[in-house]
Amino acid sequence: MSRFVIGVDLGGTKIYTALADREGNLLAEVKVPTEAGAGTRHVIDRIIQTVAQVQREAGADGPAVALGIGAPGPLNVSTGVVYQAPNLGWHDVPLKSLLEERLQVPVAVENDANLAALGEYMCGAGRGAKDMVYITVSTGVGGGLILNGRLYHGTGYGAGEIGHITIDPRGPRCNCGNYGCLEAVASGTAMAREARRLVEGGGGKAILEAAGGEREAITAGAVARAAAAGDREAGEIIAGAGRMLGIGVAGIINLLNPDTVVLGGGAMQAGPLLWEAMEREIDRRALKKSREQVRLVPAALGSRSGLLGAVVLARQQAGWLKTT
Amino acid sequence: MSRFVIGVDLGGTKIYTALADREGNLLAEVKVPTEAGAGTRHVIDRIIQTVAQVQREAGADGPAVALGIGAPGPLNVSTGVVYQAPNLGWHDVPLKSLLEERLQVPVAVENDANLAALGEYMCGAGRGAKDMVYITVSTGVGGGLILNGRLYHGTGYGAGEIGHITIDPRGPRCNCGNYGCLEAVASGTAMAREARRLVEGGGGKAILEAAGGEREAITAGAVARAAAAGDREAGEIIAGAGRMLGIGVAGIINLLNPDTVVLGGGAMQAGPLLWEAMEREIDRRALKKSREQVRLVPAALGSRSGLLGAVVLARQQAGWLKTT
Repeated sequence: MSRFVIGVDLGGTKIYTALADREGNLLAEVKVPTEAGAGTRHVIDRIIQTVAQVQREAGADGPAVALGIGAPGPLNVSTGVVYQAPNLGWHDVPLKSLLEERLQVPVAVENDANLAALGEYMCGAGRGAKDMVYITVSTGVGGGLILNGRLYHGTGYGAGEIGHITIDPRGPRCNCGNYGCLEAVASGTAMAREARRLVEGGGGKAILEAAGGEREAITAGAVARAAAAGDREAGEIIAGAGRMLGIGVAGIINLLNPDTVVLGGGAMQAGPLLWEAMEREIDRRALKKSREQVRLVPAALGSRSGLLGAVVLARQQAGWLKTT
Repeated sequence: MSRFVIGVDLGGTKIYTALADREGNLLAEVKVPTEAGAGTRHVIDRIIQTVAQVQREAGADGPAVALGIGAPGPLNVSTGVVYQAPNLGWHDVPLKSLLEERLQVPVAVENDANLAALGEYMCGAGRGAKDMVYITVSTGVGGGLILNGRLYHGTGYGAGEIGHITIDPRGPRCNCGNYGCLEAVASGTAMAREARRLVEGGGGKAILEAAGGEREAITAGAVARAAAAGDREAGEIIAGAGRMLGIGVAGIINLLNPDTVVLGGGAMQAGPLLWEAMEREIDRRALKKSREQVRLVPAALGSRSGLLGAVVLARQQAGWLKTT
């Protein structure tokens, strides 16, 4: 065990760390709460504790060859500075140099959605793809692009903001301040908002029941449970989100002609109605040839996509994988 | 003059051919009508005549080192087969092998919008870019993507269909059969359609006048002339198209984080109202960082972008330019 790498998926609520060998096999994993409220230094300490822990568990001697870490929010891959991570309360945090100083190991930093895309591409539903679009639908909508077999970053590492493509110019307001973004019309948050509106208007009985009778407790999960039990109103909310998602995905298919679109995230679990409505809209709106050439697949790695992507990043950093 | 290449921009109405030296300087140019109605063989003959003509004019001896040609419609870059070119009445035409057989010269074939993108990238408004989006707005809306300094094709050479991204799910029907595509809401055809609708409703007097009093003669050009003369209704049509264009461009900026967006095509000449409305919508809808990092520029090569792109393609084919 002298040659190993570390992958870290740093999120707003948990730090998920793994140790892997040259081939990417995970030999130890640990998950701890982030405790972001205690400040940046505390979070860095916790990351370092998890690294020590997986090394102990795997019986590793000596330092890792490299560490790959995914962070939420926009960042600069080459300097390793996280510009903004609201979930962590971070602003211009030099994550790469903070970790390198403490660990004396080369560190590669990447946006978490990009790492999830990389994880699915190398180890999950996107294996064998050349041009792959990864979309995660949960409280928000995010994504990452693999083009010509490489993570595509754009000019300032800002590419992949799929959630902020306008789907409906007259649509509801998004967190970004804009109107009708994919995130504002197809996320779990959007489904919950529609359900609450329905309940406010006197409808949505089954959904309210699924939320334990509390309007404020209505989530996409409650909508999904009501729909699974056969509630028509809940089904319509889910299908509506699926249609909006389909409009967005069709546009990306027409623009990028990918061979694979991988869809993950908690809100994709809202049931078959979501997927069916999405697919119908894609069939309708994508150009025939591009539609025929693309495979739509559910993500395969669940909540481990980012961690596995971080391990891939670390192996690339170690020179064990070609990055092209 | 023993080492030269040929570039050809094959369109539905004209064949535009040039001879260039190793550095890409054009030494002779010729433009002839395509006469597509006379059949594929006739069009091939005419291409070959133009090649002979530019060679004569440039005093070239011997065959070209390579020929690059742009064709309208989807095609396979590696086999050189044009799948569909409605303007030429073509269906599965093996353009590359037809020309290679006759000319005994290596031929590279590319989609015309992609070549226009390549032309602007290498010789025009996109010089120095790394990630460039090219959009042409004329009767239709097309485009091409340069990502990481290379033409991006997608899995089946179908990328760049910017005109068929849905902008308004409830919008007017597009030629592709779908509703609310960028092409259906922001092209010259869309502006003319809005103007005709206005006239049918009893308005649009200045536009009708600019079209010589004939409703059927209303074009985007007539709308532009009326707007230039200060007509408010014409200005609103143009600004409306600009807003739709801005929504589409903002989505692409959020998805691809390009450093440069080049906008060309006849309908972009509709006047400053178009550009201003587009830019306002981009300012509103693009994520702040990605907006700051992108340069919006008018195309610099006019109707010669495709021809110059074809010359670049030929120089790449000749091994005189790196393709990476």
